[in-house]
Amino acid sequence: MFRTVLVANRGEIALRVARACRELGIRVAVVYSTEDTDSEVVRYADEAVRIGPGSAQASYLSIPAVIEAARRVGADAIHPGYGFLSENADFAEVCAAEGITFIGPPPEVMEALGDKSTCRGLMADAGLPLLPGTLDPVSSPREAEAFAAEIGYPVVVKAVAGGGGRGIGVAHSADEFPAVYRETRRHAAAVFGDGRVYLERYLQSARHVEIQILADRFGNVIHLGERDCSVQRRHQKLIEETPAPGLDRDVLAAMAEHAVQGAKAAGYVGAGTFEFLYDDSGRFYFMEVNCRIQVEHPVTEMVTGVDLVHEQLWVAAGHPLRLGRRDVVPRGCAVECRINAEDADRDFTPTPGLIDELTLPAGPFVRVDTHVRDGSRISVFYDPLLAKVAVWAPDRELALARMRRALDEVRIEGKGMHTTAGFLRSVVESDEFSTARHDTGLVGRLLEPEPAAAGTRDPGPSQAQPPNAS
Amino acid sequence: MFRTVLVANRGEIALRVARACRELGIRVAVVYSTEDTDSEVVRYADEAVRIGPGSAQASYLSIPAVIEAARRVGADAIHPGYGFLSENADFAEVCAAEGITFIGPPPEVMEALGDKSTCRGLMADAGLPLLPGTLDPVSSPREAEAFAAEIGYPVVVKAVAGGGGRGIGVAHSADEFPAVYRETRRHAAAVFGDGRVYLERYLQSARHVEIQILADRFGNVIHLGERDCSVQRRHQKLIEETPAPGLDRDVLAAMAEHAVQGAKAAGYVGAGTFEFLYDDSGRFYFMEVNCRIQVEHPVTEMVTGVDLVHEQLWVAAGHPLRLGRRDVVPRGCAVECRINAEDADRDFTPTPGLIDELTLPAGPFVRVDTHVRDGSRISVFYDPLLAKVAVWAPDRELALARMRRALDEVRIEGKGMHTTAGFLRSVVESDEFSTARHDTGLVGRLLEPEPAAAGTRDPGPSQAQPPNAS
Repeated sequence: MFRTVLVANRGEIALRVARACRELGIRVAVVYSTEDTDSEVVRYADEAVRIGPGSAQASYLSIPAVIEAARRVGADAIHPGYGFLSENADFAEVCAAEGITFIGPPPEVMEALGDKSTCRGLMADAGLPLLPGTLDPVSSPREAEAFAAEIGYPVVVKAVAGGGGRGIGVAHSADEFPAVYRETRRHAAAVFGDGRVYLERYLQSARHVEIQILADRFGNVIHLGERDCSVQRRHQKLIEETPAPGLDRDVLAAMAEHAVQGAKAAGYVGAGTFEFLYDDSGRFYFMEVNCRIQVEHPVTEMVTGVDLVHEQLWVAAGHPLRLGRRDVVPRGCAVECRINAEDADRDFTPTPGLIDELTLPAGPFVRVDTHVRDGSRISVFYDPLLAKVAVWAPDRELALARMRRALDEVRIEGKGMHTTAGFLRSVVESDEFSTARHDTGLVGRLLEPEPAAAGTRDPGPSQAQPPNAS
Repeated sequence: MFRTVLVANRGEIALRVARACRELGIRVAVVYSTEDTDSEVVRYADEAVRIGPGSAQASYLSIPAVIEAARRVGADAIHPGYGFLSENADFAEVCAAEGITFIGPPPEVMEALGDKSTCRGLMADAGLPLLPGTLDPVSSPREAEAFAAEIGYPVVVKAVAGGGGRGIGVAHSADEFPAVYRETRRHAAAVFGDGRVYLERYLQSARHVEIQILADRFGNVIHLGERDCSVQRRHQKLIEETPAPGLDRDVLAAMAEHAVQGAKAAGYVGAGTFEFLYDDSGRFYFMEVNCRIQVEHPVTEMVTGVDLVHEQLWVAAGHPLRLGRRDVVPRGCAVECRINAEDADRDFTPTPGLIDELTLPAGPFVRVDTHVRDGSRISVFYDPLLAKVAVWAPDRELALARMRRALDEVRIEGKGMHTTAGFLRSVVESDEFSTARHDTGLVGRLLEPEPAAAGTRDPGPSQAQPPNAS
């Protein structure tokens, strides 16, 4: 096992990874920005290295700064968490050149899966069902329009370099298409430095279901069941749960087998997630692979009893998988809510600032992953995630009752501070969600019961992550 | 189900019960003493009734005050938690007379099981193995000496009205016997108002193992496995775990069956615990029944997934058990440490006072039951329990690693404040405990490696609870 692991991240996930290292007897170091000087994980780690100012670009996203910190603490491995450098193939390559183990898939695998177009091709070859769409990037507006007409509207335009719910535009008709196409290309070029896009049929009513997999360097792959992440706002996940409620278990089992096949075909190593859409006729379609630990991994841990970060460290250290499929026996239901420091009444505007007093839930079968406490400051520089509140129960009805109880315990004091706990509670108790008849459009419908004007709100399907994350 | 439950307790267990009520949609009220005005559960409850000053005698132990509060809030049931009135048959009888459901066994069952002498007789008739000893209370010093000689030294003298580790004296030889006998009788008369004692053989090397049972009003009884509570200091439990490590599973299964038999014979209703000693030759002996929820119930919950307080409420409301033995499938290992506000270096003197800052553990598979936070005051009036830290893992090795990690996270700031976390960590990492070769004498040996002088320290076997509790 590793002697020293450097955690190249911040917030709750940095603390969560640090705890896993401690339990395995691994010395743990972290990097931090000036903004995070007083953070919990800096206190927690055996060693902490300041690598830059608040701006992520100059700190958590700076490959030279992170590598320099790794050298300084004598790290033999780097855990990138989610977001930041976690899916950066260049970073993984630099780690390899430095003789430091990157805890994630090999660079070439990340590169292939990170290019959505290459990834779709790979997965199509491995037999995974794809939504009707273009396998190669479309190269001209005219070609794009022809493809769109062939696929049939609505059509989603996706950046090849996108992912995590970013770089997506939806055209509901041929009239809308040219503007959506141009805008998505422009956005992709500006944000990802790569304006290439591809097209897919857009599913109006679908569930977002993803499969957690674990793979070792020897070609062994297992899955740890699915997570349903259909409660999204603007392609960002808000609530995740496992098992996916109300869906056909045989279809989900087939989806999981496809994910395992896909991971084998790609030569995947480590923990990863295959994202799918599950439509209202019980068909599913592959969307993308997330080459890292996900924000929502706790629900899988609660139901399986498997510590996913332990297993990441284990396979990254070169060991063969120690879990067989039979060792993964799911029990009961788990649900997670992402509590953000945002004002739900003001279009979810982030509310950074000083937390005078914070009460988070506790009690039986409740898990809270957080990095904040009384006196913490929520920085404008990073995503506004305050805490992940997850609950477990033998069945979904009790899990939802427990979640309502837990959300009611959230209190925040501090000038201008708000949390999304109240809003999430209204989603949890909505009729659609509590009876599992929801789809990815639920939050849009709850927020804006009237049909949205084209382009103003898109409660569409997809993989969701905050700027920093899964 | 009940409309309003009054929680007649304080501290972590009051909050834990209140949360269970909330999850089941039950309105929850609490009683509190002046000392507890600012407590978490007072904030949490739908209604809170002040019933007296700090002294437990005048508040939490006052039957008229609690009943008056129950009338005032319109409670249809009272949950007594552990300690205080939880095993008071008179209280249960008054509740019944008032038409309020007492959440626990019927008064006559509590009365029979609370009298250790009657209880031993009942259990002997039900076929439970007892330690050699007297079934009836001994009535004269001469008779007692004759019995002791017959049983063989060492002999333990126990108060008929005792229990929970209180009212116990050990005589290692005939020379010591008269003094121990007199002192135990005097103590029992002073503390319990009942000087009657009985005798039992004293086991030098044994494990304390107890069986959790659940019973309904229709004679159905199931068990939820065992807990090993062998880590004790002066008959008070410090660390509890399930499953009992290193013991014969067949013997433990037989023990559990005996507990179920005993509960059926006694007409038990509700959640209860049968306590046994397990000797080094693999034989076990019944000790006593605890007619309430135990301090250490979380480890059973973590391993079985059953919420014991939910089930208490369910059967108290008159429903038949909804769990069959097959629904209780244990998974992995759970360990709990009781963190007290005590100075382990000064003979575990309680350190009451104001907590300026408190850090308790968190993270995957860690459960913390507590009622304190930054700014809480630890009162001199009640037991010094700060928090119960419980961990779960697939195996004991990882559970202990996780517990070490968790205990390392405990920090307390405040004038003169101490916690026992560091001491408990030394127990967890001791060779005897980590290899499961310990017995109830472990803590005594760790604290005082030389053999203790007779009477000065007794690291003996037995059932352990703080003044307020299991």
